[in-house]
Amino acid sequence: MSESNELALIAEKLDAADELAELRGKFTLDDVVYLDGNSLGALPAHVPDRMRDVLCRQWGELRIRSWEESGWWTAPERIGDRIAPLIGAAPGQVVVGDSTSVNVFKALVAAVRMAGDDRDEILVDATTFPTDGYIAESAARMTGRTLRALTPAEIPAALGPRTAAVLLNHVDYRTGRLHDLPALTAAVHDAGALVVWDLCHSAGALPVGLDAHGVDLAVGCTYKYLNGGPGSPAYLYVRRDLQPRFDSPLPGWNSHAEPFGMSAEYRAAPGAVRGRVGTPDILSMLALDAALDVWDGVSVEAVRAKSLALTDFFLRCVTEYTEPGRLECVTPLRHEERGSQIALRCSDAAEVMPRLIERGVVGDFRRPDVLRFGFTPLYVGFAETERAARVLAGALT
Amino acid sequence: MSESNELALIAEKLDAADELAELRGKFTLDDVVYLDGNSLGALPAHVPDRMRDVLCRQWGELRIRSWEESGWWTAPERIGDRIAPLIGAAPGQVVVGDSTSVNVFKALVAAVRMAGDDRDEILVDATTFPTDGYIAESAARMTGRTLRALTPAEIPAALGPRTAAVLLNHVDYRTGRLHDLPALTAAVHDAGALVVWDLCHSAGALPVGLDAHGVDLAVGCTYKYLNGGPGSPAYLYVRRDLQPRFDSPLPGWNSHAEPFGMSAEYRAAPGAVRGRVGTPDILSMLALDAALDVWDGVSVEAVRAKSLALTDFFLRCVTEYTEPGRLECVTPLRHEERGSQIALRCSDAAEVMPRLIERGVVGDFRRPDVLRFGFTPLYVGFAETERAARVLAGALT
Repeated sequence: MSESNELALIAEKLDAADELAELRGKFTLDDVVYLDGNSLGALPAHVPDRMRDVLCRQWGELRIRSWEESGWWTAPERIGDRIAPLIGAAPGQVVVGDSTSVNVFKALVAAVRMAGDDRDEILVDATTFPTDGYIAESAARMTGRTLRALTPAEIPAALGPRTAAVLLNHVDYRTGRLHDLPALTAAVHDAGALVVWDLCHSAGALPVGLDAHGVDLAVGCTYKYLNGGPGSPAYLYVRRDLQPRFDSPLPGWNSHAEPFGMSAEYRAAPGAVRGRVGTPDILSMLALDAALDVWDGVSVEAVRAKSLALTDFFLRCVTEYTEPGRLECVTPLRHEERGSQIALRCSDAAEVMPRLIERGVVGDFRRPDVLRFGFTPLYVGFAETERAARVLAGALT
Repeated sequence: MSESNELALIAEKLDAADELAELRGKFTLDDVVYLDGNSLGALPAHVPDRMRDVLCRQWGELRIRSWEESGWWTAPERIGDRIAPLIGAAPGQVVVGDSTSVNVFKALVAAVRMAGDDRDEILVDATTFPTDGYIAESAARMTGRTLRALTPAEIPAALGPRTAAVLLNHVDYRTGRLHDLPALTAAVHDAGALVVWDLCHSAGALPVGLDAHGVDLAVGCTYKYLNGGPGSPAYLYVRRDLQPRFDSPLPGWNSHAEPFGMSAEYRAAPGAVRGRVGTPDILSMLALDAALDVWDGVSVEAVRAKSLALTDFFLRCVTEYTEPGRLECVTPLRHEERGSQIALRCSDAAEVMPRLIERGVVGDFRRPDVLRFGFTPLYVGFAETERAARVLAGALT
């Protein structure tokens, strides 16, 4: 109990010193401790009013004119340029639209085509969120390549002259392990292959540095740490110098150099626009556009510092409050290997998570035995983090 | 002038007898004559309030719980079942999600795979909206088939033992010509091939009868006559008996038999769900869901009858008001060959359309020389139609 009081006091001090603390006021939150922003980010409070304008004025009054006058037509690349600085990309390389799965397909097929016909193997992260693996299998089948699934640690030794492309996750969705993007990218390049990074669990939580590390292609979702709303459109990054060679397997009219020319011949647009496909889902896209406003003036480095402080503090509280051996932390303790979540293993995780949720602490359960807690530095505080650990300890007994 | 008065009187009578007239009140409209619902349907007036609930309560308060509690997870097939009766499909065969282009890719690749390895040719409607042609080319390239573009009239003679699949438009986006779906479907089947119909310009405007005519696969958008909002998600129809053989080129986790099993092995779900890919864009999808409410109790046959009456009346007014030879109607005059639009050709169409829009009549221009007027029977009336023809005549002189 005195230990608990001590940690509560520390939490209070950490909250008082938190330079990002005021951002919480920009979100619609209640007294639930929401540690599931790595699944669905919370609602930025101004989004509903913005969407009322999109619905009533842009669609309702301007109707078809909004494709020009409200900037609907260029939204995919304009919003892509808003995401770009969050993932370390200069403008003109990111386009928003479609789901992550569809973008993995575009990126991986395009990477294989750029690698050339003599490279006949695709490597995929065996620990990936399953959809990447399924789509990689389809990409391999449809480009006549073989697919091999390996852990990220096994990738460097498996690379060679046969390797066409490698699909990797920046952060493991289950364990929260952060992979070494610079080193793995360099290894793939040393083998003459291309790399596609899935940023779903890192973008908005930590610096990615796509340009700095020479990444070839990347994809990511926008409904986790970017708070774009349920199923908000994903994005695709194609490094500028690769864009002229980006040969999309989904060449829709939106990626045509002259989309309103209505030509029967396909001619790919220059730039990131080449990654577009069909008519963009404007409502979901403009909710994301509004949601990105909370990032104005926020540095990803500050977000990363707070994320590590939060996960460190959570682990300290969990260690203090729970019986030794009751939980196993599957998230790496080393900062350079940790994303923005803590995954704790216990055999009764499936029963523990509903109890936690009932007591106002929302994380999620990942089969077979993982309790997953995501920490969104924009709106999660230290006192909440201490409370989450305390409630968790109570739910375990 | 007396002629104009006579037609205005006829319009008044037609409006008074119109059993669908009261539906106009369900939409946000002003005194513009909106004849561009075949590009972007008008806003159903209740949608913004519904979206406020989706944003503020479902996302803002329930957050991640909404995937279950608000029915987000099953929205693609539930909304598919709401579209099904509008295109003559029994439940369980339509799923909503992705863009039309992406669905064309899924449908055409799946059709080719079902046709078997000995059939090496895909036929595509040469008069199609360009994206279908581009995607067909990619599908052919990625399945090792050749692609041949032909007009729908040329298709029957081109069918043979080499034909794997045929991609056709129900209504030509430019001319408004309605193709003979039952006869073309039967011809394709006689050749042992599969047919994919694009319903973008027919669904919601006329009866389609997918089940009745034994169509194999179909796709369509929802932002034209279904009024789902800008870029609202498209849909995919897979006939029930073909579903077990539907082998998607985009096998995302949402189409897995056990999506939360997080298995590295892909196992396709049974039923229409097999056509899903990644996380659905819930905001756009639920706006469509709300928009479909205006169809409650509306028969597609009544919509078709009014559509033909509107386009007949428009042609009559245009004929009366304009100088002979000034405009050429490229839409067929025979009802069985006409969709729900009238396309008029004149050499100065590019200058005429802006004048029309300035005078409160909104249609659109299709290069090089076509004025396109779409008639949405749910909200377009006869007096407006007479006014549009009168304004058009004035804009031509």
